[in-house]
Amino acid sequence: MTVETDLAELKHRFQAIEDLHCAESVLTWDQATYIPSGGVEARARQLALLSSLAHERLTDPAIGRLLDSITPWAEAQGVDSDAAALVRVARRDYDRATRVPQAFVHRLAEHTATTYHAWERARPANDFATLRPLLETTVELSRELASFHPGYAHPYDALIDLAEDGMTVQAVRALFGDLRAGLLPLIEKIRARPALDDRCLTGDFPEPAQRAFGEAVVRAFGYDFARGRQDKTAHPFMIKLGRGDVRITTRYRSDHLSDGLFSTLHEAGHAMYEQGIDDALDGTPLFHGTTAGVHESQSRLWENLVGRSRPFWEHWYGRLKKAFPDALNGADLDTFYRAINRVAPSLIRTDADEVTYNLHVMLRFDLELAMLEGTLEVADLPDAWRARIRSDLGVTPADDRDGALQDVHWYGGIVGGAFQSYTLGNVMSAQFFAAARRDLGDLDAQIGAGEFGPLHGWLKTRLYRHGRKFTPPELVERATGAPLSIAPYLAYLNTKYGALYGL
Amino acid sequence: MTVETDLAELKHRFQAIEDLHCAESVLTWDQATYIPSGGVEARARQLALLSSLAHERLTDPAIGRLLDSITPWAEAQGVDSDAAALVRVARRDYDRATRVPQAFVHRLAEHTATTYHAWERARPANDFATLRPLLETTVELSRELASFHPGYAHPYDALIDLAEDGMTVQAVRALFGDLRAGLLPLIEKIRARPALDDRCLTGDFPEPAQRAFGEAVVRAFGYDFARGRQDKTAHPFMIKLGRGDVRITTRYRSDHLSDGLFSTLHEAGHAMYEQGIDDALDGTPLFHGTTAGVHESQSRLWENLVGRSRPFWEHWYGRLKKAFPDALNGADLDTFYRAINRVAPSLIRTDADEVTYNLHVMLRFDLELAMLEGTLEVADLPDAWRARIRSDLGVTPADDRDGALQDVHWYGGIVGGAFQSYTLGNVMSAQFFAAARRDLGDLDAQIGAGEFGPLHGWLKTRLYRHGRKFTPPELVERATGAPLSIAPYLAYLNTKYGALYGL
Repeated sequence: MTVETDLAELKHRFQAIEDLHCAESVLTWDQATYIPSGGVEARARQLALLSSLAHERLTDPAIGRLLDSITPWAEAQGVDSDAAALVRVARRDYDRATRVPQAFVHRLAEHTATTYHAWERARPANDFATLRPLLETTVELSRELASFHPGYAHPYDALIDLAEDGMTVQAVRALFGDLRAGLLPLIEKIRARPALDDRCLTGDFPEPAQRAFGEAVVRAFGYDFARGRQDKTAHPFMIKLGRGDVRITTRYRSDHLSDGLFSTLHEAGHAMYEQGIDDALDGTPLFHGTTAGVHESQSRLWENLVGRSRPFWEHWYGRLKKAFPDALNGADLDTFYRAINRVAPSLIRTDADEVTYNLHVMLRFDLELAMLEGTLEVADLPDAWRARIRSDLGVTPADDRDGALQDVHWYGGIVGGAFQSYTLGNVMSAQFFAAARRDLGDLDAQIGAGEFGPLHGWLKTRLYRHGRKFTPPELVERATGAPLSIAPYLAYLNTKYGALYGL
Repeated sequence: MTVETDLAELKHRFQAIEDLHCAESVLTWDQATYIPSGGVEARARQLALLSSLAHERLTDPAIGRLLDSITPWAEAQGVDSDAAALVRVARRDYDRATRVPQAFVHRLAEHTATTYHAWERARPANDFATLRPLLETTVELSRELASFHPGYAHPYDALIDLAEDGMTVQAVRALFGDLRAGLLPLIEKIRARPALDDRCLTGDFPEPAQRAFGEAVVRAFGYDFARGRQDKTAHPFMIKLGRGDVRITTRYRSDHLSDGLFSTLHEAGHAMYEQGIDDALDGTPLFHGTTAGVHESQSRLWENLVGRSRPFWEHWYGRLKKAFPDALNGADLDTFYRAINRVAPSLIRTDADEVTYNLHVMLRFDLELAMLEGTLEVADLPDAWRARIRSDLGVTPADDRDGALQDVHWYGGIVGGAFQSYTLGNVMSAQFFAAARRDLGDLDAQIGAGEFGPLHGWLKTRLYRHGRKFTPPELVERATGAPLSIAPYLAYLNTKYGALYGL
């Protein structure tokens, strides 16, 4: 009886924490879509209040006592039970939140706000010098944050584990090393071939037709508009506002097709993951996607493995041509397919193609690791960036705007623990897709016939419904029957781009 | 020094309460505009949580102690000072909230939710019988709510005072009696004249053009879109999401012009009131419009006194005709002016014209008063409604859907304290407008020239900037130099409709 009462009490408390986070999400969504300029200042204060109320509740010692009381019973339910997963994940969240002193949380939040505002001005001014002392403090604070979490072999392990439960620096380094060794020769070979022509993506693409087409595709994927919606924003994202309300955002360029189309597919992948979680987990910390990396595997799977595949366009290209008869006039299926898969080393991570993208990530991962380990001075970061991108991709940024100032991550949070997830997501996306193909029979034929139900169903059963019950390594093993591996990803890239470039 | 510290502490606490209410408003706004159907259930729980968090904070005994500490100093600042008003209004809110036991708050909330859901089904089914026992409980709960607030001559006084600070049953009864005596003969005379023709309002009015026209008008009024925005909803409303973020909502009928146009003007009036409050009051309970009645005076002033006036349309009608050249083809200014001011006794309050509208309100006010006093049984309400509307307006509802089941108020809250504010708002709107005219010179010429700056400025200075500093009676006296009076309102109606109907 005590366990039942305590379990009910714990769930009641977590429901309120979840509801506060969801309220925060409503405010965040509005801030990124419809807020008038006059409302921005008050909104920041409202968001800070909700965030601190949720944090207060999560760090309430009563949570720890309830978890102590419930754990023996929950573990007796079996390691795969919802109850066991609940106490496991709740304990992890509780420990992580309570280990960090409140004073540090405030110090970090203030420093982050200051640094972010400085970056907003410094980036367009190409002014790394102003940011240097701030970034030095960020590196110190990142080390300090790691120090609150004991028991890791490498200080950076704490930061990675916070983002990707169960991953270590050693594992990521090894995986990135192997991946890099596979990617560089492929890029070399592609660069020796004539460039693919992507001019058909430029032209007049009216926004309403882009919107209608994108929504038709993601509806066919299985994104449920009765439990979500799509709006416009500056930087597309997916956000959950509550059970039954998982929204996506996008942006359109009327002179170019790619941006709006693929960001819609990408965010829908994230959203289908959240929409697919078992409702029985609602109100608990399990009712979310596992980690940023696993989330990215789903956005990338639907965007790239499906959305940039030839079978997909065999079914959809006719419809796309009808939506944009003028702009796509003269571009046949093969021309279009080559255009959306053009590989071209570039300066900007978010514009990068599938093949070169991961080198952008590795560059950042290595540089931030070096800063945290103290082997790279912040003052030397811009030069280190330039040297690395030149040697990896053969391009050189004209200034720091497209170099060390490019991404918001280091200037809007801590240094360490964010970038690796993008590449882990790519790697996992191919491994999941290969396993689905093995289980579903002729997946290409299904996609080519516009049938996404089998794939979506496989992903729901193997991944989505579990929410946070399992860590990424556990989830990969359970879903695919094998540990995390770069082999499916490299095979996918080599096959696809080998055919595209005639290698 | 203690006072300073306590004042800072009090303001800090009220800022958080305001921020929680604003967060609630963001969730409410989204719920009424963009939420997907799947998100409705979780949203209700999120809203209830935010509401209870704000209530907890308002009823914290520390608020009472801080007010005790600050009051002598605040009162020494002078009765008109922000400090004195702050403790006056904060004390009123605190006392009102703490007097009502938490158990009662929950009981009332649960009963209200049940009754509202029952009404949603019972109204279309014309099923008063199902609602009768629920409404009986509502009447009891309304009496009980009044009983928590001591010191009133009449139990209903407490409910009116909660809505319209400083108003009493006696005052409202006297005012309504006089107003009724003035309205009935006017309606009688109008009914003896030929009806005005409003067919030009029916036709094809494309929504984008309606939206563009409405936004142009309210922008000219002075509604600031940098600190607000307009979206579509089912039941238009105005809502404040924070300082610098006061939004309006509207709806359109593509086959009729009135609904969208006048609801836009109406809500913009509410919004300009909120946008005009002195920023120095932000974060305190003073940073809102005074009461529902004063708020309604502003929505009605801009909708009716301005928006249904002939000078207004002398300036705007050319532009309206350009927006809808086909639908308004052949309707000249006078035809249009008569159409939007057609008087026709009807069954539905929200569709009523300026002249008959208040009789709908008085009917409800008298019936709810009789239910609270026990002189009318709930079981007899439908008959009493029919008898009264027949005798007042000469129309008879076919069933209770357009009778006792018509408005949500009794089925979505308490009985008593809501309806009088609509008519008080009408009365005040004319008194404010007459005072503005007296102070501003040729107001008709200004409006006829499309100049709203002087009127908006007068309202900001006399009303808007004060927020909740003064009660409605105080505000009327300060703004117009006279106590609340129906004379300006009757004079306005008699003059305007006398001319329109050739009386």
